[in-house]
Amino acid sequence: MEIAELGEFGLIHHLTDDIELQNAESVKGVGDDCAVLQYSVDERVLVTTDLLLEGVHFDLQYVPLHHLGYKAAMVNLSDIYAMNGRPRQLTVSIGLSKRFRVEDVEALYAGIKRACAEHGCDVVGGDTSASLTGLTISITCIGAARAGDVVTRDAAQVNDLLCVSGDLGAAYMGLQLLEREKVVYNQQVREALQRGEKPESLPPFQPDFSGREYLLQRQLTPQARRDIVEKLAEAGIHPTAMIDISDGLSSEVMHLCEQSHTGCRIYEDRIPLDYQTAAMAEELNMNVTTCALNGGEDYELLFTVPLTDHDRVSAIEDVHIIGHMTKAEQGKLLVCRDGAEMTLKAQGWKAT
Amino acid sequence: MEIAELGEFGLIHHLTDDIELQNAESVKGVGDDCAVLQYSVDERVLVTTDLLLEGVHFDLQYVPLHHLGYKAAMVNLSDIYAMNGRPRQLTVSIGLSKRFRVEDVEALYAGIKRACAEHGCDVVGGDTSASLTGLTISITCIGAARAGDVVTRDAAQVNDLLCVSGDLGAAYMGLQLLEREKVVYNQQVREALQRGEKPESLPPFQPDFSGREYLLQRQLTPQARRDIVEKLAEAGIHPTAMIDISDGLSSEVMHLCEQSHTGCRIYEDRIPLDYQTAAMAEELNMNVTTCALNGGEDYELLFTVPLTDHDRVSAIEDVHIIGHMTKAEQGKLLVCRDGAEMTLKAQGWKAT
Repeated sequence: MEIAELGEFGLIHHLTDDIELQNAESVKGVGDDCAVLQYSVDERVLVTTDLLLEGVHFDLQYVPLHHLGYKAAMVNLSDIYAMNGRPRQLTVSIGLSKRFRVEDVEALYAGIKRACAEHGCDVVGGDTSASLTGLTISITCIGAARAGDVVTRDAAQVNDLLCVSGDLGAAYMGLQLLEREKVVYNQQVREALQRGEKPESLPPFQPDFSGREYLLQRQLTPQARRDIVEKLAEAGIHPTAMIDISDGLSSEVMHLCEQSHTGCRIYEDRIPLDYQTAAMAEELNMNVTTCALNGGEDYELLFTVPLTDHDRVSAIEDVHIIGHMTKAEQGKLLVCRDGAEMTLKAQGWKAT
Repeated sequence: MEIAELGEFGLIHHLTDDIELQNAESVKGVGDDCAVLQYSVDERVLVTTDLLLEGVHFDLQYVPLHHLGYKAAMVNLSDIYAMNGRPRQLTVSIGLSKRFRVEDVEALYAGIKRACAEHGCDVVGGDTSASLTGLTISITCIGAARAGDVVTRDAAQVNDLLCVSGDLGAAYMGLQLLEREKVVYNQQVREALQRGEKPESLPPFQPDFSGREYLLQRQLTPQARRDIVEKLAEAGIHPTAMIDISDGLSSEVMHLCEQSHTGCRIYEDRIPLDYQTAAMAEELNMNVTTCALNGGEDYELLFTVPLTDHDRVSAIEDVHIIGHMTKAEQGKLLVCRDGAEMTLKAQGWKAT
């Protein structure tokens, strides 16, 4: 169906009329000048926003719209967890170019709604507009944490343990894989055109993703780590500082150090890697530690805890102690497998 | 200065490091995964978001970036007032194409900050990204109203008076004026090129805006009507329903009627018009009532009050009673100067 058949108000209604608000804090959702929310005085309201632009943040040639919507919501949810909060509401603004049909927007929205449903978050508003250029998605997420529970980036202490959830570098490897298959496909299309054949006459393209499913899943459908935030709370651990990994471990740990006025030591052999990540890096002749440090889009949580929490944090499944915080003047260091020390850089690192 | 010289984090720091949070509710602003806010239990948190895309919502050929930023913030502030709330925080996401320089983004941000300063609103976060296409601006505004003070669109009652602030149609006339001067300028450039001259050799273009300053001001720097919301509160008037006029009086009054399950009668001769609006419509051979009904971008407040508030609402400067609400089955009507009744349409209206 063409979007013009529904019109702007019709489209919004079509996309949002099945939304049932789940949270008591969501007093009023889509349909007025503002959404109306209710928070208690002992809660802090957390707000985060992300802008995703076609060609910069995603490539529709290989990202299905349902996955794109899911990921767009997930990266915002992840920011709420990174403050030790719980997501409650989300607004969705989308700019749609003419080539989109109602079914496309439905798929995008279905992905957003699925991510929200998995995390108990209500879609409460947004804006839908025509776009003369590519697809634009702007999501704002609102969450809550009890006043004393908010964890910022600026309170890591010297000697705190530096911990990370999950494994790193897989989303970046997934991106490399998708890019590689795109090149193969585009080459087949070019060759067909040179032979005077229509691309439609080609046999269905079968991208070679076998044994690499985990990498694709990490790139296309990242998971915001509510489970880690919940396990930390259950274990009675209050991280001193926390951030989620969107730009890569190196960049994020530098934010923690700079805002907390500390240095750090990360041990290369402690950085958690999945087997598929290592195998793919090998295949592409890339250094897997570089991928883990700088790849980004992992949406894992990076946090610091007091040394006294060592045993409790070690007992949490899927949390890895990768180093510790030091005095600022000791620098931000990666201790390599051979014992050499490198200074971390936001992108890459150099020998000290 | 090129944006690449600063980098993403450098640019954000450059744009936001002079921000001082004004509201006690703004606990933490730019610089972490989320902004942290604090609201009291007797307050409702209001959230609104707007997406502005180059070529769809604005034309950089005649909109200065400072004005664009100002207006982008103002349209969000207006949504908060339309709920009878007060704006407190705002997030700014911008997608910048390569042709933008640091000075351009500064101008855009300066406009946003000026609007926020005028309305006591804190810039608490956002996102800055490269854009492969045009300029993208996504703003989310958060405000507050005491629980019993929130005014929605759905509680207008039969016989309520329908009121509007300010005057209507001027912003639309301002847009026509800017478009007309753009055509004149582009024509001069084309002719110069045809004569083999460089456009730079032309004398500075002097757009003819004399006597039309009000129309330009209404188009380029609309004012969110905090003053009206405050005067209503001072007068002890609690509107039964309210909306701001972004898409035009006709479209907005239809939202009030549909969500409140009422009809309405608007009297054409009561619709407030500025002299410049009427003169410009005459000059362009347009029906001024059509401009007021469908022009949009006035950002005036349209609201309903009980009949018993007639005298109090009449005493408020710059508020005009333009009609009243009726039973739904009586329709949504415009009573013309000659007494004829027309059915309102979201865009335009037709004879009954």
